[in-house]
Amino acid sequence: MSQKIIIVGAGLTGSLLSIFLARRGFNVEIYERRADMRTANISAGKSINLALSVRGIHALKQVGLDAAILKHAIPMLGRMIHLENGETSLQPYGKNENEYINSVSRKDLNVVLMNEAEKFPNVTFHFNMRCTGMNLQTGEATFFNELTQTNHSVIGDTVIGSDGSASAIRMEFLKSGFFNFSQQYENYGYKELTIPASENKGFRIEKNALHIWPRGSYMMIALPNEDGDFTCTLFMPFKDGNKNLAQLKTIGNVTEFFNEVFADAVPNMPTLLDDFFANPTGNLLTVKCFPWHINDKAILLGDAAHAVVPFFGQGMNCCFEDCYNFDLLVEKHGNNWLTIFEEFGKLRKENTDAIADLAVENFVEMRDLVANPTFMLKKKADVLLEEKFPEYFISKYAMVTFHRLPYAVAKQRGQIQDKILMELCSKITTIEELNLENAISKIKDEFRRNGIEEKIQLND
Amino acid sequence: MSQKIIIVGAGLTGSLLSIFLARRGFNVEIYERRADMRTANISAGKSINLALSVRGIHALKQVGLDAAILKHAIPMLGRMIHLENGETSLQPYGKNENEYINSVSRKDLNVVLMNEAEKFPNVTFHFNMRCTGMNLQTGEATFFNELTQTNHSVIGDTVIGSDGSASAIRMEFLKSGFFNFSQQYENYGYKELTIPASENKGFRIEKNALHIWPRGSYMMIALPNEDGDFTCTLFMPFKDGNKNLAQLKTIGNVTEFFNEVFADAVPNMPTLLDDFFANPTGNLLTVKCFPWHINDKAILLGDAAHAVVPFFGQGMNCCFEDCYNFDLLVEKHGNNWLTIFEEFGKLRKENTDAIADLAVENFVEMRDLVANPTFMLKKKADVLLEEKFPEYFISKYAMVTFHRLPYAVAKQRGQIQDKILMELCSKITTIEELNLENAISKIKDEFRRNGIEEKIQLND
Repeated sequence: MSQKIIIVGAGLTGSLLSIFLARRGFNVEIYERRADMRTANISAGKSINLALSVRGIHALKQVGLDAAILKHAIPMLGRMIHLENGETSLQPYGKNENEYINSVSRKDLNVVLMNEAEKFPNVTFHFNMRCTGMNLQTGEATFFNELTQTNHSVIGDTVIGSDGSASAIRMEFLKSGFFNFSQQYENYGYKELTIPASENKGFRIEKNALHIWPRGSYMMIALPNEDGDFTCTLFMPFKDGNKNLAQLKTIGNVTEFFNEVFADAVPNMPTLLDDFFANPTGNLLTVKCFPWHINDKAILLGDAAHAVVPFFGQGMNCCFEDCYNFDLLVEKHGNNWLTIFEEFGKLRKENTDAIADLAVENFVEMRDLVANPTFMLKKKADVLLEEKFPEYFISKYAMVTFHRLPYAVAKQRGQIQDKILMELCSKITTIEELNLENAISKIKDEFRRNGIEEKIQLND
Repeated sequence: MSQKIIIVGAGLTGSLLSIFLARRGFNVEIYERRADMRTANISAGKSINLALSVRGIHALKQVGLDAAILKHAIPMLGRMIHLENGETSLQPYGKNENEYINSVSRKDLNVVLMNEAEKFPNVTFHFNMRCTGMNLQTGEATFFNELTQTNHSVIGDTVIGSDGSASAIRMEFLKSGFFNFSQQYENYGYKELTIPASENKGFRIEKNALHIWPRGSYMMIALPNEDGDFTCTLFMPFKDGNKNLAQLKTIGNVTEFFNEVFADAVPNMPTLLDDFFANPTGNLLTVKCFPWHINDKAILLGDAAHAVVPFFGQGMNCCFEDCYNFDLLVEKHGNNWLTIFEEFGKLRKENTDAIADLAVENFVEMRDLVANPTFMLKKKADVLLEEKFPEYFISKYAMVTFHRLPYAVAKQRGQIQDKILMELCSKITTIEELNLENAISKIKDEFRRNGIEEKIQLND
């Protein structure tokens, strides 16, 4: 087990994976493009906070870090919907108060993972090392040290590319020939904004919720942070539609727009204009590719293999589930990398495809449907059906978020459930009118027609 | 008009485009990775022969080269189907003997185009120059001269990447950020094989046909060449299914396989074993991407923008149609590259997507359906309907191959037609049983339901 594993990227996926592999006795060298976020004053990149749920927690538990992470997390019990008229309503995420998601700081989480990894004598981090490529035959990876401006190279028994959605390792796969690949950008951008804490670190709006201002073709959301502030994100078309980012050029444009459509939020956003013009506009990207490995020399993992849009809150959870599944295969096959890589692809590909698709679909739900009366009835139907028929019915959101059954199964069952329930709910005005027996019987029929088992097989 | 245009790639697309642009007075510099095929003894790459049809001919006509090319082409009037029991039958491509496709040599065609281009004083070819990248801000393209082993760079007012499905220019687009891209390989490979001429350059099998040995999950085809030989191509799964390329490892395997499934071809393939083991196994790739341009500095054209699988015989024809359309926009907008590039993308993207999808679908038709009784009836129905209702009905194959209406329209109309006719033909045993009035009425209904005009708008 004196094999050397090179991990490219010390983000959430690379850092957690290094712990799993260190526990198995491998020598792990992690190369990270950025400076050490524990000492340098840099952001953790991408979104500031994330929604940690069951899949992510389960993986963290395997390495004994779940409690440490959850101690600093803020439970979000549901979606707090802010309508244009200023009304708000809470749509619970789960069937009871034990089902919630956790707002965590990307940076805090990454730091906990890096600190834990460094406790192992067989893990070494190398910062400021930008990957410039790798030799897929020999396992030699090359790096440019941004501080010393020098080139480095290192040979591993295998190389793991956990270097994110713009992966440098994946670029080598692309050059190598037979490699199915797609990257698809949404016609939407996003801006991170802030609702700062009030005095004494107080929360200006409901602390234990994920806030949504749904506006049809665009939306704003806000997630709470431990210090009392909220990270808001405005998602909006770049240039399509009635309202778009291209229109928001001047202080006047932005002020007018926010006053018009997010009136109840504006009083809580004193730094709005500074944030809006200082922060970059982010992209929303889905990456799918396959195979994820080249022989036994390199494998892509996490966002490098399957970047998703953020609308199901599953990006990190999916990546952590990758790490957990990868570790199970290492337990089974030791250092037989080819077998591990092949089985990992077979196990994960259909599931990461499924969550990628679900995440794109959920954007419509968040920005539009949550304010729709039929959808609100459907949410209530979800709860009632799960209470009454727990062996046969779990809502799509819950299957993805509060259980660990494969994403592909959650997608297949969830889409059938949602279609039938939206149809039934479109014909009623109160949830009491819904015949639950009839609904579950229609759903079971459709499961059968699609070759799906009626009973849910949970693996919790 | 003293602007300098850099074309990367002197294949069929780049060479034809250089003629169009030279005629408009631009200074054109073409850089080609390979040696000059007119003097070096190299293959033209990829498939040896191609099926030239109306779109390609129309583009060649604009530059006065149609007659010169067609003089050396061999008309293929239909598909000659070779069943496993040795029976053969000809399925005509068109409704009459004026509708056929033309087998042309890729190399001969490329040479004619290069010779024509070089007649212009404002066109210069540079061979053995492998593109190593470009600067998308400045329009500087860099090359490595494979002969002198030296680096070169050149700045153009704009750069056209017609450097094929593995485009180096496109790699720069990929690195630049917001760029939707997918490359999808089929799980099939191909092998080029030969049916040599008999004595005195005689054709051993029917000269004026495209021969197909359909075998369900795989197939062989053969196209005639001017010298009397046929280029055969075996398309077969790499490793899936009952029969696959991975099984064909030894002389014994190959001999047994060909004797079993292509028995009537084997006596005409004296060099089969040499060809099989000497020739590389090719890949089948679909590339889609967008946008095709970065500002006014670079655009992708031809296979670099939209590589397709070869099963509709439209790869080259589509690329030539690109050149024709591009030239129309240059006529309209001069050297306003940004406008030209934007309009080109708007005009072509949905059509190149359509032919990419049609080409994948046609693989099933060629390897499987052509031997299916319902499909054979449907082919007859196509002819009868087009005779009887020429304003409303043209077969999908003919819309793509013998007309120039947009590929997207051909796909939309063709899929509706085929679905209805396959259904109707599955219920009959002879074509006389088909009620043509009923068929066209069903088709028109479905056109209306899909918002398609009943009458065909031809642009021939």
